[in-house]
Amino acid sequence: MDGNKKQIRLARRPVGTPTMEDFAFTEAPIGTPGEGEVLIRNVYISVDPYLRGRMEDVKSYIPPFQLNDVIVSGVIGQVVASQSAQFKKGDIVIGTLGWETYSIAHEKTIRKLDPDLAPITTHLGIIGMTGLTAYFGLLDIGKPKAGETVVVSGAAGAVGSTVGQIAKIKGARAVGIAGSEEKCRYLTETLGFDAAINYKTENVRKALKEACPDGVDVYFDNVGGEISDAVFPLLNDFARIPVCGAISAYNKTEPDVGPRVQQYLIKTSSLMQGFTVGHYSSRFKEAGAQLAAWLNEGKLKYEETITEGFDSIIDAFLDLFKGKNIGKQLVKISEFE
Amino acid sequence: MDGNKKQIRLARRPVGTPTMEDFAFTEAPIGTPGEGEVLIRNVYISVDPYLRGRMEDVKSYIPPFQLNDVIVSGVIGQVVASQSAQFKKGDIVIGTLGWETYSIAHEKTIRKLDPDLAPITTHLGIIGMTGLTAYFGLLDIGKPKAGETVVVSGAAGAVGSTVGQIAKIKGARAVGIAGSEEKCRYLTETLGFDAAINYKTENVRKALKEACPDGVDVYFDNVGGEISDAVFPLLNDFARIPVCGAISAYNKTEPDVGPRVQQYLIKTSSLMQGFTVGHYSSRFKEAGAQLAAWLNEGKLKYEETITEGFDSIIDAFLDLFKGKNIGKQLVKISEFE
Repeated sequence: MDGNKKQIRLARRPVGTPTMEDFAFTEAPIGTPGEGEVLIRNVYISVDPYLRGRMEDVKSYIPPFQLNDVIVSGVIGQVVASQSAQFKKGDIVIGTLGWETYSIAHEKTIRKLDPDLAPITTHLGIIGMTGLTAYFGLLDIGKPKAGETVVVSGAAGAVGSTVGQIAKIKGARAVGIAGSEEKCRYLTETLGFDAAINYKTENVRKALKEACPDGVDVYFDNVGGEISDAVFPLLNDFARIPVCGAISAYNKTEPDVGPRVQQYLIKTSSLMQGFTVGHYSSRFKEAGAQLAAWLNEGKLKYEETITEGFDSIIDAFLDLFKGKNIGKQLVKISEFE
Repeated sequence: MDGNKKQIRLARRPVGTPTMEDFAFTEAPIGTPGEGEVLIRNVYISVDPYLRGRMEDVKSYIPPFQLNDVIVSGVIGQVVASQSAQFKKGDIVIGTLGWETYSIAHEKTIRKLDPDLAPITTHLGIIGMTGLTAYFGLLDIGKPKAGETVVVSGAAGAVGSTVGQIAKIKGARAVGIAGSEEKCRYLTETLGFDAAINYKTENVRKALKEACPDGVDVYFDNVGGEISDAVFPLLNDFARIPVCGAISAYNKTEPDVGPRVQQYLIKTSSLMQGFTVGHYSSRFKEAGAQLAAWLNEGKLKYEETITEGFDSIIDAFLDLFKGKNIGKQLVKISEFE
């Protein structure tokens, strides 16, 4: 296709909290798909806290971005030209694609979405990556039992809000920790959490003790830092801690220091396990179907924060670290036709 | 039986490192066993780091000692009078008994030892509590595979020295961290560890990197603190960390603070799990038989540090926190007849 596309590249490695200057807006020819490829007009871009980690030049579960790379994340788009027998013009597809207005992708790297299964954007959220993250972390590592107490931090985020709701589906008590009164009300009034703690205004240790009179059996950790420090003294015997994220530490330039956890784990025979959803890919189909079923039965609710326009992608990403979003943060950069 | 027995009681709760003044030497009548009970002359007393935890008034996996309680731990003794059909005078028995010269115990709380199975003292060590701790922590949580690298701290202690040897039996590389040249030589020259690091004279981070060129797959943590901090950056994907002890923290009066572990666990999908051997009691028989078999096949070696005399019990206990012992620390307070 003639014309140029807009792109966002990593201009330099952020030190501390990323800023606009760490990214570069560039242009490149849209191009034409080769054999087995399709040309996609990107519509929804997912911005996620984990991307901050890929901007560091360190070994992790996914390789770091290289300088001058186009940033990639979960993207939903629409096929505008196809050289693949598997896709035709108009198909709505999902994949890990660039922060750019158009992408060319090989047929093996994208998947067609059924727009009738669930609202399209949920494939980037509650039945997609963030929902799957909640599902596997909570059920495979956390293993909540009926009557147990599940605490989740970052509770109003895309992952945390799903964790609490799945805990409720499994008959557990759900206690969320979030950063505003609005978020706390959303958790208890809309999503059915049993309690919510505003870490910006409450004494988290005291509030947790009151909200968890029988201790904590599962702590789904999205944030690390002092909020997590406050949970450890309340662990019950054989507690489970899926460690999903540590957003409090992602932008730190000083070492992330706090009470060592060893003694808490020893005293309670508790388990703490890091995980990343990619390792469960062989079970995505089964889990996605379960999440979609719960969604359609009304057992799962979700919220999205959608900003508009390609130029707002960086702001939307930076807002994640300010705790501005409720639920899944997306950017809409074009329309479906 | 006429006469008095000597006892050691908890006189006050230690603050920081315990001192002689935290204990009281008292006397009490030896007494006579009732129905179903036996009178035991205690011979070997086990002193163990975990007892320090029981001296604190905090909830843990075993209830704390109460002030003025006789301290109890693993003890081997000989029956001198029996009112139980299951035991006769002269039987050698093991149980959790008092730090006292004689104990009266119910038949259900003690077990007869076969002096021909293995050297008597090994029932308090390598085929007893400390060996079982190494066995379950390493095999059930650590799950070492052939060719993997197992790092163990407190490596010259009763648990650590067994962990490294079981790792070798399973075909893994064993790297020990210990506190003297003598201990390090013992690990590599006598026990067959692949490498040993003297944390008192070496830069642990640098030495670990050299000793673990392929990273760390299992870290059996006996000590916590800065030594454990140094291991986390070397974890491989899906590493396992059985958390057995945190002797570096037991006597701290200030909060035990260090780098938070969350980011390490997330980046590598690693697992960290506290445990206590008591929870595996249903499998003690199977595991003890395996340990005895390895011992008799010459695949497991052990060392004991045995001090003599009832009056040396406290010193032997305090020496544990100075890292004086190699292998199992015992006190011999009388003779078998």
